Amino acid sequence: MKKQRLMTPGPTEVPPEVLQEMALPVFHHRTPRFQKMFAEVNDGLKQVFQTKGDVITFASSGTGAIEAAVVNTMSKGDKALVAQGGKFGERPGEICKANGIEVVPLDLEWGRSPEPRAIADALKKHPDIAVVFTTLCETCTGAESDIAAIGPIVRKHKALLAVDGISAAGAAEMRMDEWGVDLLIVGSQKAIMLPPGLAFLAVSEKAWKKIESVKSPAYYFNLKAARKKLPDADTPYTPAITLIRALKRSLDLLLEGGMESVWHRHAIMAEACRAGVKAMGLRIFPDRPCNALTVVTPPDGVDAEAIAKALEKDHGIKIAGGQDKLKGKVFRISHMGYVDMFDVLTTLSALELTLAKLGHAVEPGIGVAAAQRVIAGAM
Amino acid sequence: MKKQRLMTPGPTEVPPEVLQEMALPVFHHRTPRFQKMFAEVNDGLKQVFQTKGDVITFASSGTGAIEAAVVNTMSKGDKALVAQGGKFGERPGEICKANGIEVVPLDLEWGRSPEPRAIADALKKHPDIAVVFTTLCETCTGAESDIAAIGPIVRKHKALLAVDGISAAGAAEMRMDEWGVDLLIVGSQKAIMLPPGLAFLAVSEKAWKKIESVKSPAYYFNLKAARKKLPDADTPYTPAITLIRALKRSLDLLLEGGMESVWHRHAIMAEACRAGVKAMGLRIFPDRPCNALTVVTPPDGVDAEAIAKALEKDHGIKIAGGQDKLKGKVFRISHMGYVDMFDVLTTLSALELTLAKLGHAVEPGIGVAAAQRVIAGAM
Repeated sequence: MKKQRLMTPGPTEVPPEVLQEMALPVFHHRTPRFQKMFAEVNDGLKQVFQTKGDVITFASSGTGAIEAAVVNTMSKGDKALVAQGGKFGERPGEICKANGIEVVPLDLEWGRSPEPRAIADALKKHPDIAVVFTTLCETCTGAESDIAAIGPIVRKHKALLAVDGISAAGAAEMRMDEWGVDLLIVGSQKAIMLPPGLAFLAVSEKAWKKIESVKSPAYYFNLKAARKKLPDADTPYTPAITLIRALKRSLDLLLEGGMESVWHRHAIMAEACRAGVKAMGLRIFPDRPCNALTVVTPPDGVDAEAIAKALEKDHGIKIAGGQDKLKGKVFRISHMGYVDMFDVLTTLSALELTLAKLGHAVEPGIGVAAAQRVIAGAM
Repeated sequence: MKKQRLMTPGPTEVPPEVLQEMALPVFHHRTPRFQKMFAEVNDGLKQVFQTKGDVITFASSGTGAIEAAVVNTMSKGDKALVAQGGKFGERPGEICKANGIEVVPLDLEWGRSPEPRAIADALKKHPDIAVVFTTLCETCTGAESDIAAIGPIVRKHKALLAVDGISAAGAAEMRMDEWGVDLLIVGSQKAIMLPPGLAFLAVSEKAWKKIESVKSPAYYFNLKAARKKLPDADTPYTPAITLIRALKRSLDLLLEGGMESVWHRHAIMAEACRAGVKAMGLRIFPDRPCNALTVVTPPDGVDAEAIAKALEKDHGIKIAGGQDKLKGKVFRISHMGYVDMFDVLTTLSALELTLAKLGHAVEPGIGVAAAQRVIAGAM
C-alpha cells in the first residue's frame, strides 16, 4: 500500500467532501437554485480576496483570466509595465505583445521579487503606463511580491495594478482593497481547493472605469458582458456548474474560521517546511519566499528532478520539479489549500529518506524535528 | 418523492458512473498517467466527430470554441458568411463584428434551416468569403442544417466551413470529414454526457493551412499553441483534469456500440417525441427538426412558459422554454445524451397531464401511445 499525496503547486488536493459535490446530479443553471448558490459563491470569493469589488468567474484556466485582465483594460498602442521574474510573470507580457500593447519590462533575476522602488521609478519614467502586472507569488521560483508596498505606489498613478494571485491567493495574505489591487487573478486548482477549470478575476472600481472606456474585441472573456449578468447571479455563457457547486463547498470550508486563520495556518506550514529543509542543509531558492510553496535548491551533486522522481516512486509523494531554466536546479513543495502540518512533516520525512538514498547524508530526524519545533511553537 | 429529470438541451443528465469519476482524488496532469488518458480521449473524440483531424479541448463553454474558430482563421477586414436563424447562429457574427471582420448575413426566419443553394449563391457573389458559419442544430429553434449538402458546396471554394455542433454533435448524424466540415465546435454538456466546462474544436487540414497563415492575437484560445502540444497529449495551459477524466468515461459509454447506433437511438427518440406531441394536437416548430431536441409550439391560448413551469413543479421534469423572441411561444424537450426511450415516454406522459391541467383537453394516453408505436416499430 502506498498512499498518494499531491504536494504540487497546482493541482492541489481537493477535500473529499468537495469532490463528492461533483458526483451529485447536475442541475440547470438558469434557475433560482443556481442563482442562490452563485450569489453565495460570489460573496465568498470577495471575502477570500478581501474586496468589496466584483469577482468574475470564468470556465477556463488561470491564463484565461490573465488574458481577460489584459484585453479588457488596454488596446493596441497602450503601454504595460510587467515585472517578470519567472515563467508566470512573463505571461502578461506575452499576451500584451500578441495584442500590440507595448511592454515595459521590469526584469528580475529568477528568485528575486520586484523592488517597490523600481516600480515607482518606472511609473515616473513612463507616466503613460496603463497597467502594472506582477505576481503575488511567482510559482516557478516561490518568490512573493510585496503587494502591500507596491499597491500604494501604483494607487497614486492612473495606472491599474494587476496581480497574478493564481497560485497564492487564499494561502498567502492578500488584502485586495486595502492594498490597492485593481485586478486580482486567481485559479481554482491551488489554494481554493478545487480541481482546475475555473478562473477568477476580481475587479476594483478604478479598473471598471478603465474597462468601460476600452472597446475590447474580447467575447468569451469580456468583462463588461460578465458584469451585466452579476446582479442576477448569472453568467453570459454556460457556467461550469459542477465546479461552481464544488466551489460553494470549498469556500464554506475556507471561510469557516476566517481568512486570518487560513493565512496563519499557511504561514506556520511554510515556516515549518523551510526550517525542515534548511536543517537538512538545503537552501531556500527565493529571497522572499511565499507561504504557498517552498522552492528548494538541492545539495551539490544531487539533481532536483531525481529527488522529485524518487519521492513519487518510493513514497507516493508528488512534488514539482523546476521549470524552464530552473529544470533540475530546484524542486518545489506546495503547502497550500487542503494541506495540514502533518502533510508537511510527512513530506519532510520522505525527503530525508530520499536525500540519503541519493547520496546526501542527512541525520535521520533533523528535518522533521526542526519542522516539529516550529509547529509546537505555534500551538 | 418527486424524481428529478433534466430534459433540457444543455445541461443534460450525466451518467452516474461518469459523475463518480469526478469524485475521485485529483492527479497531476504533467504525468504519463494523464497523457495516456488524454491521448485516448483525443482518439475517442475523433471517432465521435468522424474525423481524422485534430480535436482541441478547451476548458471553457462552447462559446469559447466559437471564438477560437473565428479569431484563429480570420483577421480584421476579412469576410465571413453567417447563416443565422436563431440566437446561437448569430453568435459567430457577433464575434466577427467585435473583431472587425465583415459579416455577410444569411438571415433565416427562426425555425427555418439554411438552403444549401443560398450558401452557394452567397459564395459566388462574395468569392472572398473566408469562413462560412452555420449550426448543425440551432438549439433555440430545434432546426437542423443539411450539412451533408452544404459541405460539398463550400469544399469547392477556398472558404472554410465552420459548424456549431455544440448541442447536436454526438446525437444527430455528423460525418465531419466525409461532409467536408473544417471546424466543428462542440460543448461537453449536451450529447457528450458531461457537465459544462469543456469545449471541443475539431480542425481539418484545410483549416490548419488557413490558421497557419493568420497572425492571431488569441492567447488562451490559440489553436497553433494547442496543436503544438497535441503530439505529447498535453495542453498549453492547465487542463480541467476532472472533466477530462469524466470525458474518458463518457466516451467509453458513447463509443461502446459505435456512433451509428448512437445516432439511431436519437433518431427513434426524436421520432417518438414528435409523434407524441403531434398526437396531442401540438405543432413541431422547425421545418427540419434535429434529432437532438424537439421544439414545440403550444396549443392556442396556452403559454409555453406555463407548460415548462408546471412540468417542473408538478412532475420534476425540467424542460426549456423559448429564448429571446420565442419566449412563451415554444417549449423545448431535449432527448440527447444520457436519455432513453422511457425518459421520452415519461416526459410525454407528464406533458399530457400538464396540458390538461392548463385547459387543453388531451385524451389520456394519445401522446404516449403514439410514441410507443414508434418505439415498438423500431425494435
